[in-house]
Amino acid sequence: MTRTRDPEQTRRRLLEAASDEIHRSGFQSASLDKILKKAGVTKGALYHHFPSKAALGLAVVNEVVAGKIRSDWVLPLGCCDDPITAIRTTLAEALQTSGSDYVALGCALNNLAQEMSPINEEFRDCCGEVFGEWKGGFADVLRNGQVRGLVRSDIDPESAATFLVAAVEGTVGMMKNAQSLEPGRQSMEMLDAFLESLRPQTPKHSLPVVGLPGAPAGCEDC
Amino acid sequence: MTRTRDPEQTRRRLLEAASDEIHRSGFQSASLDKILKKAGVTKGALYHHFPSKAALGLAVVNEVVAGKIRSDWVLPLGCCDDPITAIRTTLAEALQTSGSDYVALGCALNNLAQEMSPINEEFRDCCGEVFGEWKGGFADVLRNGQVRGLVRSDIDPESAATFLVAAVEGTVGMMKNAQSLEPGRQSMEMLDAFLESLRPQTPKHSLPVVGLPGAPAGCEDC
Repeated sequence: MTRTRDPEQTRRRLLEAASDEIHRSGFQSASLDKILKKAGVTKGALYHHFPSKAALGLAVVNEVVAGKIRSDWVLPLGCCDDPITAIRTTLAEALQTSGSDYVALGCALNNLAQEMSPINEEFRDCCGEVFGEWKGGFADVLRNGQVRGLVRSDIDPESAATFLVAAVEGTVGMMKNAQSLEPGRQSMEMLDAFLESLRPQTPKHSLPVVGLPGAPAGCEDC
Repeated sequence: MTRTRDPEQTRRRLLEAASDEIHRSGFQSASLDKILKKAGVTKGALYHHFPSKAALGLAVVNEVVAGKIRSDWVLPLGCCDDPITAIRTTLAEALQTSGSDYVALGCALNNLAQEMSPINEEFRDCCGEVFGEWKGGFADVLRNGQVRGLVRSDIDPESAATFLVAAVEGTVGMMKNAQSLEPGRQSMEMLDAFLESLRPQTPKHSLPVVGLPGAPAGCEDC
């Protein structure tokens, strides 16, 4: 057991170890002993920082899982000025960056939301807030695109954002069941077509259904 | 404890009780005692029919869960001749019929697939086969529609089918987290638009993005 005089570092190690163990085993089956062993801290230190296993799990959602969703799926939306290309690029890169994790263990946020939503209101709300931030990221980009005439005015940005998050989470679930990246490739082909269909209808963007390109066309910033 | 001389009925009662308990608690947390109590049979009778908890769980997937997926999502695809309308109608009716179950507990197939795929190969394969049958239903309808000139020839029916199942499962997951039908309504609005975009491009079907209609237009058989 390593004792440290840096409480913040101890807390961070506990959160990282708990995040890893919960991602592998689910919250209910996660072993506190394994978490303590991996973090190299005492049970006393754990309860100093987190009064209960639930408090530790909620902190994992708020601080670790939310951060991963933000860095993979929300912040990269600012990658370029064209909203459709920004979303396509973000989806493709997140699935590429985290694809092997998703195949192995699924999405940490969705795993917890599916396991805990029916049995624990705090977890449900906590996961719901992270989904809300993710959906908000997509909706903001689409709404902003509508103002600038780059996204069809007859679609509801909130509905499209919910659909995008649902499609991503469902796709990650298919990848986890198939233990393969292939469902991700198939879904991305369709998501690209769906996203292109959100452009205002001009001859330039006449709804191509295309294979997965190396990089979305038309973006000079990415 | 009710004793019955009808082994098939006993087996059926065990499967139904197990299906219900697993849907509520997950496979690993499902209580055999609760299943026996609900089915009203002895432990001896359980082990006569199912040599292990895993055998009972796999039979639930193969016989109960697969049957529900088939009756909700695959068989109704024969409801009418127009492939796009058949899929739209099937999605809308399944979400309407099973919506409150999905809000409460999610999709039994996806719950098990997400819980068990990383830790048990038999469950993973078993769930994968049911997903395969479901995707096959969508792919067959789309492929048949391509032959008859009713679906765009430039889309891959397998990719579209994977995407549709992923979008449905992701949407059900959002409904379960939100404890609300609203994500289902939002996703259906987008899925309808996506499905309409799969029609060959003629002025008649020029990619309308519309709100959720009471019933899809253009189908006289449904």
